[in-house]
Amino acid sequence: MLNQKVLEKLLRIDYELIQNKIGNFLNNEMTNGEFNGVVFGLSGGIDSTVIAMLCAKFVKEKALAIIMPNGKITPKKDTDDAIMIAKNLKIEYKLIDIENIHNVYSNYLEPDTLAFGNLGARIRANVLYYYANVRKYLVLGSSDKSEFLIGYFTKFGDGAADLLPIVSLYKTQIRELAKKLKVSSDILLKPSGPHLWKGHTAEIELGIPYNEIDSILHCLTDNNLTIVETSKILEIPISSVEKIYIMYKNSKHKRITAKACTI
Amino acid sequence: MLNQKVLEKLLRIDYELIQNKIGNFLNNEMTNGEFNGVVFGLSGGIDSTVIAMLCAKFVKEKALAIIMPNGKITPKKDTDDAIMIAKNLKIEYKLIDIENIHNVYSNYLEPDTLAFGNLGARIRANVLYYYANVRKYLVLGSSDKSEFLIGYFTKFGDGAADLLPIVSLYKTQIRELAKKLKVSSDILLKPSGPHLWKGHTAEIELGIPYNEIDSILHCLTDNNLTIVETSKILEIPISSVEKIYIMYKNSKHKRITAKACTI
Repeated sequence: MLNQKVLEKLLRIDYELIQNKIGNFLNNEMTNGEFNGVVFGLSGGIDSTVIAMLCAKFVKEKALAIIMPNGKITPKKDTDDAIMIAKNLKIEYKLIDIENIHNVYSNYLEPDTLAFGNLGARIRANVLYYYANVRKYLVLGSSDKSEFLIGYFTKFGDGAADLLPIVSLYKTQIRELAKKLKVSSDILLKPSGPHLWKGHTAEIELGIPYNEIDSILHCLTDNNLTIVETSKILEIPISSVEKIYIMYKNSKHKRITAKACTI
Repeated sequence: MLNQKVLEKLLRIDYELIQNKIGNFLNNEMTNGEFNGVVFGLSGGIDSTVIAMLCAKFVKEKALAIIMPNGKITPKKDTDDAIMIAKNLKIEYKLIDIENIHNVYSNYLEPDTLAFGNLGARIRANVLYYYANVRKYLVLGSSDKSEFLIGYFTKFGDGAADLLPIVSLYKTQIRELAKKLKVSSDILLKPSGPHLWKGHTAEIELGIPYNEIDSILHCLTDNNLTIVETSKILEIPISSVEKIYIMYKNSKHKRITAKACTI
């Protein structure tokens, strides 16, 4: 059983201050780079919902949300939620079902479930950057700190962004922030997941709940503790800590730019 | 008229040594990351031709070249050249015309020449990463130092790669390396360009030839000279130096990872 003390401390942060920091960050980046607005993918999951709410609060008419289900893969509830969120927040949105685009690639590529799933995330990035190019907007990525550190995103897919507004917040902190922002409880409680294929959820794929993942990452990366120390402090098995450590280490290439050969 | 001294010095490097460095780089990266091979886009332009030749020399059967014309935009000569290069080098290749994929996006997006051009480069990245996922291969980007520093590439398009084997070599140095590698003269002399739309070439778009661009970038970035000093040493107008400096400065966001909001 996880010792909750680390997590409790992690969650005790000033969510009002953080919101303002993110608001300033977005507005400063737009102004400094002479951009006209921001564009982001709205899935109806908690991370993109929080992004949408912060956009509604701080940049309003300069925000464009793009809802990009794959009609055959994405749960209909997610798409309905996403539309409702955009409508309630009164931010501009577009609905583009990527199923046909996704399928036409299949005519040229050999079948592969994982690669095809990642392709979906990359098609979404193409659409976001299309609008970014057309309107001179900045693309917002919705990775949180947990997903970012364990590499739980598609390289050059949902990982493709100009700005990462919530990447300094762990998933459990995002959940707290979402509560303060009064995100509806069914979005809060919905199992999070990238839905790269049908039924694809994070808890099943990762096998460790986010309160443990966040506690482990905080010990390993923010506090530079060893695997053994982390396991001891958190009172969880070394195997769980090791699993997260390996994910963190093996995904380093996703958090840096392409490696150059120096001459 | 450009004072050639800076350029002459720039071109006086050990091309044999550099080739070996790139070969070691590719093999080390594959071994260290337990990757099975490398995949890259082969356009028939000089940069990707050099990559293909280095792959044939150093990683041979572990290299996959993907030729991805858009039948309506890409000059037929480029595609024919690319096929011939892959065949002569006896490296594995696939030919995928992206025209249909490219066009299906148009059903969902408002027309925009520039954004549509960039989309083509991003579709090519999608295909490269599809094969990278399927085979556990590393994606090679073919940006050279000139293109990289002035941002003459599509963000998350041809800029999307795991490794950049030739990014430490200026375009003029790549031309010298290509001569040593006995790249055929019609590929050497062909006007370079991304062909994101019909007739799209670098010299016309940039308005400054690469021997000037490289001399300017070398003074500004390798030697940290000012714009005025660079103009004086190279004996070229301040306006040319300024143009390149602005391209360098404004494209910084393409050479770094997404900007995080810190809390």
